[in-house]
Amino acid sequence: MQRVWLALEEKKIPYQYIEVNPYNKPDSLLTLNPRGLVPTLSTPDPPRPLYESTVILEYLEEAYPDHQPRFLPEDPYERARARIWIDYVTSRIIPSFHRFLQFQAADASDAVAGLDLARQEFLNHLKVWTKEMHPQGPFFLGEDISLPDLVLAPWAVRLWVFDEFKGGLGIPDGGPDGEVWGRWRSWLAAVESRKSIKETTSDAEHYLPIYKRYADNTAQSELAKATRSGRGVP
Amino acid sequence: MQRVWLALEEKKIPYQYIEVNPYNKPDSLLTLNPRGLVPTLSTPDPPRPLYESTVILEYLEEAYPDHQPRFLPEDPYERARARIWIDYVTSRIIPSFHRFLQFQAADASDAVAGLDLARQEFLNHLKVWTKEMHPQGPFFLGEDISLPDLVLAPWAVRLWVFDEFKGGLGIPDGGPDGEVWGRWRSWLAAVESRKSIKETTSDAEHYLPIYKRYADNTAQSELAKATRSGRGVP
Repeated sequence: MQRVWLALEEKKIPYQYIEVNPYNKPDSLLTLNPRGLVPTLSTPDPPRPLYESTVILEYLEEAYPDHQPRFLPEDPYERARARIWIDYVTSRIIPSFHRFLQFQAADASDAVAGLDLARQEFLNHLKVWTKEMHPQGPFFLGEDISLPDLVLAPWAVRLWVFDEFKGGLGIPDGGPDGEVWGRWRSWLAAVESRKSIKETTSDAEHYLPIYKRYADNTAQSELAKATRSGRGVP
Repeated sequence: MQRVWLALEEKKIPYQYIEVNPYNKPDSLLTLNPRGLVPTLSTPDPPRPLYESTVILEYLEEAYPDHQPRFLPEDPYERARARIWIDYVTSRIIPSFHRFLQFQAADASDAVAGLDLARQEFLNHLKVWTKEMHPQGPFFLGEDISLPDLVLAPWAVRLWVFDEFKGGLGIPDGGPDGEVWGRWRSWLAAVESRKSIKETTSDAEHYLPIYKRYADNTAQSELAKATRSGRGVP
């Protein structure tokens, strides 16, 4: 949801933000989108519903061609390459983020090894992604922020949850992958200092009880349930 | 893989088709794409790799703008709506196709009820998708074939596997959903009689041993393994 909010802020597209209780969805949402999916974007004039955050992001890019920054490169090959790494965030990085966060040891012998396996899986996905970044950046495709950055940013600025609940994120200082992790840190610094990110992210205290439910694996969101049942991101 | 092949045929884009043994990938593929994913498309001049079939399909649309048919509508809202239902095929219909095909009863009491549950889940996804079709069609968006059709077609023309291995597909004749299933049948007839589909689909006999391994849940493809472990389409 924050992905879409970020995109609207970045492109300075006027919008009205309506927060809904996901466990008690209002009629105003269900009238627009009977499936009640969040985020749902209503287009202006005529009002028509769109959902699925990556679909909405491509829509904003195409429906507001005069708004900067452009979210995808012009060249068809570079656009396709960007979409591969956008898809990698959604299909690999985020599911492994949630498997790590929601990890529960089956028994005591599994508590260290199992958690470490979930951690390594997540870090490996981050590493594969980081190796595809523009060498200097600071953003994924170069100087300007674009879709690969925006789709990962909401999770990237919440990596403190692993320090809080799971004994640390475990990115090594130095070592054989020192250069890759250095690039990761420069990307994360650029994302964290971005105005749109700061303006759409609340303080950690606000999120603590929400993420505690994830970390205890008692959260009831669609994403939490999908992770628990071993299915992908809904 | 057939999705990309279909797209190249439909747009009459010159290509060279190289079949690979997925269990023994040749160096020519691994040089181009170290992850060895299939399908991999090599662009002409300079040769650069692309993978992920929906990414390749959007690339062909953008890199060959003068080739007909166009695979997505012009209007940004209609394009976004098409992408929602393309994603629905990949994230909902195809995983449930494979859960149904690979279903194995845990014990005798589960043999009928469990299989029927897998069947109903698959049919419900087909029904939701079919309700979104253009009323007359015959294709998903209207008179012309487009991406929602191409992404489902390879599975749609193999629905005979459920008759062969799983006691029938079970689409009802008439009943409360008679109109929806009538529209499904007219869509399927249009797809099955399409030249590009016929030319890229072998006889059922060719596929029988392959699908038998899926139906016995002993197939070793990435898709089969992902289905078995309860994860999404890789």
